Amino acid sequence: MVHKLILVRHGQSEWNEKNLFTGWVDVKLSAKGVQEAERAGELLKESGLKPDVLYTSKLSRAIQTANLALDKADRLFIPVTRSWRLNERHYGALQGKDKAETLAAYGKEKFQTYRRSFDVPPPVIEDDSEFSQIGDERYNDVDPNVLPKTESLKLVIDRLLPYWQDVIAKDLLQGKTVMVAAHGNSLRALVKHLDNISDEDIAGLNIPTGIPLVYELDESLKPIKAAYYLDPEAAAAGAAAVAAQGSK
Amino acid sequence: MVHKLILVRHGQSEWNEKNLFTGWVDVKLSAKGVQEAERAGELLKESGLKPDVLYTSKLSRAIQTANLALDKADRLFIPVTRSWRLNERHYGALQGKDKAETLAAYGKEKFQTYRRSFDVPPPVIEDDSEFSQIGDERYNDVDPNVLPKTESLKLVIDRLLPYWQDVIAKDLLQGKTVMVAAHGNSLRALVKHLDNISDEDIAGLNIPTGIPLVYELDESLKPIKAAYYLDPEAAAAGAAAVAAQGSK
Repeated sequence: MVHKLILVRHGQSEWNEKNLFTGWVDVKLSAKGVQEAERAGELLKESGLKPDVLYTSKLSRAIQTANLALDKADRLFIPVTRSWRLNERHYGALQGKDKAETLAAYGKEKFQTYRRSFDVPPPVIEDDSEFSQIGDERYNDVDPNVLPKTESLKLVIDRLLPYWQDVIAKDLLQGKTVMVAAHGNSLRALVKHLDNISDEDIAGLNIPTGIPLVYELDESLKPIKAAYYLDPEAAAAGAAAVAAQGSK
Repeated sequence: MVHKLILVRHGQSEWNEKNLFTGWVDVKLSAKGVQEAERAGELLKESGLKPDVLYTSKLSRAIQTANLALDKADRLFIPVTRSWRLNERHYGALQGKDKAETLAAYGKEKFQTYRRSFDVPPPVIEDDSEFSQIGDERYNDVDPNVLPKTESLKLVIDRLLPYWQDVIAKDLLQGKTVMVAAHGNSLRALVKHLDNISDEDIAGLNIPTGIPLVYELDESLKPIKAAYYLDPEAAAAGAAAVAAQGSK
């Protein structure tokens, strides 16, 4: 039996547009992001893939993307589960900061380290920052000691994998087609695990927004072939755009 | 402790617009219905009420309404559960039929009976009707013997109350503010139960679309005061419009 997993990175958000570090700050999709999400749903529908169950982060931009895509794909009725473990990487003290100003403040080397190093997190966010998640009711059901105040990609993997193993994998093994609507870095974390990508090589992996990425997995949830995007041409262009954004 | 319950009837659907009996046929919101759903979210936001958990039927028009309203109210992150027990009344053989043609076919008396009698259901739908739900994967997880092929309001109450008692009530008693996004008749069934309305009087109760109806309940889930709409003026106009639709 082939187990199907569909990953969707949310469309452009209002802060992507403004070039701000977002992380766990709960901003919504931009008008372009809405279009991207609808396109994801059209691609799903054309593909004939039928997600049986949806997982999202606790962040609006991923939830909006899933809602819009499932509407277009006529799959709004499927069960949904949301978890902070699928959230975007917590950007620590950089959350809410302008990327150009951050570059000027920290210098190019530190800036690039915080953006793309595998295991060096940015400085922690202060609890009294307006962009801190202390007291955010989204996370009322989580032990406050577990909630991050900054994260590297490695730390994202550490908090995401238990959820993959204990929850999402169970649905896949029961034969359900699973859709995950999440974020650039939580999806990179999952892809790194699934494709066994090295700590060095993951820096070069960019996931485009709004284009479903499909995994076909065997009984031990290993890919039986390379994962594929539902619109490979748009995905290549999108990944290049994400990479270019990184070098701005 | 006061337990808060928010009921939202979905906005206008594509078939309301076309004057067809809908029931369990899964049609989407019309453009007007989208506006009504967004308005529901604005009313929620202005009210300061904060739903902690959402219940919807398995039908797209209720799910779309909830998604749009929670987006406007900045509450997309709350957990969601969907159940067929919150579905609209199954309209039996009338599903997919034009209301004017049905009136002509059955005569005024039968037509009014099927629409508004408490316990007389319309004729059952044939399994091979294009508007039957036989084989509909939305209901794969339900014993086929339980799924209706027609329903009176009484039968809606019979299948809805166990879900209210076993599932929704539990969340309320745990102190959660519960939002239910559903349909004209499933909400009438719930309101009949909550307000202890007689079998005769329920025929005269019309719930307007897209205007949150708020119950404040005591420890035994009895209303501590009359339920209220978040926009009473629009609700009165909306209920009158629904009543007028019935007499067309």
